[in-house]
Amino acid sequence: MLGFFKVTDLDTVIAMAGTFPLTNLEKVPLASALHRTLAVDATSDIDIPGFDRSTMDGYAVRGADTYGASDASPAWLRIAGTIPMGEAPTLTLAPGETAAISTGGMLPEGADAVVMVEHTDRVDEETIEVYRSVAPGHHLITRGEDFGEGKVILTAGTLLGPAEIGLLAASGHGEVEVHKKPVIGIISTGDEVVPVTARPTTGEIRDVNSHALSAMVETAGGDARTFGIARDGEGDLNPLLTEALATCDMVLISGGSSVGMRDRTLTVMEGLEESDILVHGISISPGKPTILARVGEKPVWGLPGHVASAMVVFEVVVRPFIMAALGSKARFRPTVVARLSRNIASAQGRTDFIRTRLQLEETGYRADPLPGKSGLIHTMVDADGLIRIERDTEGLYRDRLVTVHLLS
Amino acid sequence: MLGFFKVTDLDTVIAMAGTFPLTNLEKVPLASALHRTLAVDATSDIDIPGFDRSTMDGYAVRGADTYGASDASPAWLRIAGTIPMGEAPTLTLAPGETAAISTGGMLPEGADAVVMVEHTDRVDEETIEVYRSVAPGHHLITRGEDFGEGKVILTAGTLLGPAEIGLLAASGHGEVEVHKKPVIGIISTGDEVVPVTARPTTGEIRDVNSHALSAMVETAGGDARTFGIARDGEGDLNPLLTEALATCDMVLISGGSSVGMRDRTLTVMEGLEESDILVHGISISPGKPTILARVGEKPVWGLPGHVASAMVVFEVVVRPFIMAALGSKARFRPTVVARLSRNIASAQGRTDFIRTRLQLEETGYRADPLPGKSGLIHTMVDADGLIRIERDTEGLYRDRLVTVHLLS
Repeated sequence: MLGFFKVTDLDTVIAMAGTFPLTNLEKVPLASALHRTLAVDATSDIDIPGFDRSTMDGYAVRGADTYGASDASPAWLRIAGTIPMGEAPTLTLAPGETAAISTGGMLPEGADAVVMVEHTDRVDEETIEVYRSVAPGHHLITRGEDFGEGKVILTAGTLLGPAEIGLLAASGHGEVEVHKKPVIGIISTGDEVVPVTARPTTGEIRDVNSHALSAMVETAGGDARTFGIARDGEGDLNPLLTEALATCDMVLISGGSSVGMRDRTLTVMEGLEESDILVHGISISPGKPTILARVGEKPVWGLPGHVASAMVVFEVVVRPFIMAALGSKARFRPTVVARLSRNIASAQGRTDFIRTRLQLEETGYRADPLPGKSGLIHTMVDADGLIRIERDTEGLYRDRLVTVHLLS
Repeated sequence: MLGFFKVTDLDTVIAMAGTFPLTNLEKVPLASALHRTLAVDATSDIDIPGFDRSTMDGYAVRGADTYGASDASPAWLRIAGTIPMGEAPTLTLAPGETAAISTGGMLPEGADAVVMVEHTDRVDEETIEVYRSVAPGHHLITRGEDFGEGKVILTAGTLLGPAEIGLLAASGHGEVEVHKKPVIGIISTGDEVVPVTARPTTGEIRDVNSHALSAMVETAGGDARTFGIARDGEGDLNPLLTEALATCDMVLISGGSSVGMRDRTLTVMEGLEESDILVHGISISPGKPTILARVGEKPVWGLPGHVASAMVVFEVVVRPFIMAALGSKARFRPTVVARLSRNIASAQGRTDFIRTRLQLEETGYRADPLPGKSGLIHTMVDADGLIRIERDTEGLYRDRLVTVHLLS
């Protein structure tokens, strides 16, 4: 009854992500580029800023003219004019001269610093007193200080957040070349599974996995498409999977939680043309009965039926495949270090992922592992993250510091 | 030249969020509900699961029939039949009887536990040996164990992630009532600001803020609409702001970074009907010259012109207003505790936000404060988070533990 598992270890499975092709490129308007992944290095077409720019409201000066200035002994400077915004100033400062300048204004020739208006007083129409000395370079951003013309400002694989969007705007990228979102087909299986809109009769359950997995696909940067429920085993699954493969870059088949259903899923996957079963079982818990096939150039996954197991497997294995398809090199992993609130046992020879809540305390986070069964949805709703326990570890003691991978 | 600031402290400004109305409700399909905020408590229309459900492949048993069973002395049970998936079983277990059951199958009457298939052997067509004793309740989820019929499963204000989407699916919510996304109008000001598609001439800069702020609005759950650049002071700004107020729930005016431009922004805001300047200056750094007006029932913000300042103000002040408009009570704040890598000075009487990088080390995160000027975009691109230094603190010493608010 129980199928034979050629169990593969987690890191070996994740490494297989690199053997599948990336998605094609497309150009999107900058306004639609949030959370997309840059496909090519982006350069700046200009120096940023393009000129020496004041960062304060005040007066452009030659720093040397202010040396020794103080409340008791202010420096007197002659006002040569006012710098207009958005234009190159036409005036040039001679020694002993100054010009009124606003934040963002361009420094006139001859000036090398800005003195804040708070540190000056107007003596008359033509003269100010300066109460502080400023060194050259003070209160200004020099031409190209942020980024230089022609320089790479963001490398391929960067996930675009608001700051990156701002930087692309500064450097003239009205459009951005990104990887297309991989289209991920989702199929539920199981004789007991009914759509969300149906009221389950005894023995039936609603199709939770399609919805939870679709949402996870979206958070990973994919484009989720659901293909319905294969209730009747191979008879239903084969045409649904064939349909999904025709339009999708990857397919997730979730459930049947029973061995019988899993066997039928495997049979259908094996029966496809150009199909190669790469993984039949991963040495992780939860999620051991996961299947991965290469069908043509596309990964097809058989995920566990229990929703919490399916979500953990998505998080630790499927998500890296989606990121690989996007050419992503996300820089900042959302993890926190936390202190375990109790001992956790773990079996050697497999990588365990323990759902956990996090509580912020004075000295850092406390991790409260959630015991719940994988078939319960509320253990996923309650969980803030996952603790990874390595294969060669028998368990973790209370008060130990652990890294918690935050769930999105 | 410098306007008089009625500086308000940060917490007072944030508390004003509650004085503005929430957005209206709308129903969205569950498949589109990711990252939306639930507007009303959601209940379950059924017990979840709706029946006592096996979590293993194996045999349904009366636990008492297995007591004392071991490898040396197995229990013998008569096979009464096989439980079908997706249906209520018709058989009833008598003492000494068992039935084959798959994961997700419904326990037959008379059974109170499941024994894993690995702990059994088939003796003949009608008989199994059992090598482990199981207590009642073992390897099953009882009816309603996850959630009970009529119970509140998620409360109003919950941000919907994949796990919550799964739970809503389980409890029959094909549609979800959420708060409409607040529509946030964005206007840039400044004589020196040109569109991204233009090549700036000397003294000009591209409109970075509109793009960075739009992206931040999206990450906060709002719907960003840009209204262009008011280059010519009041003359341009008044019609743009009037147009934005006609269709938006909130307006962000960013820049002019100069006091002159800020004064013009304030003049235009004051000149609107039903306008009340609530805040003219916040005791934070960066971001002091922030303006908040109530125009009718809508918040209108004057944000600093420097992009890094505008982004910090958005993160710490504007974002809470958007969350309030959504009725959000986001549970898990993305913060980490980190050890400071160097001393940071801070002025008393204001709340400082220090951009910082994070480095994951063995014992937790190290926070490397980024010194950069607010006019530089790369300090925001490089930053992983913000350290908040309270008003009554003069600074923070190296090696101190600090809470870092992660940037999205």
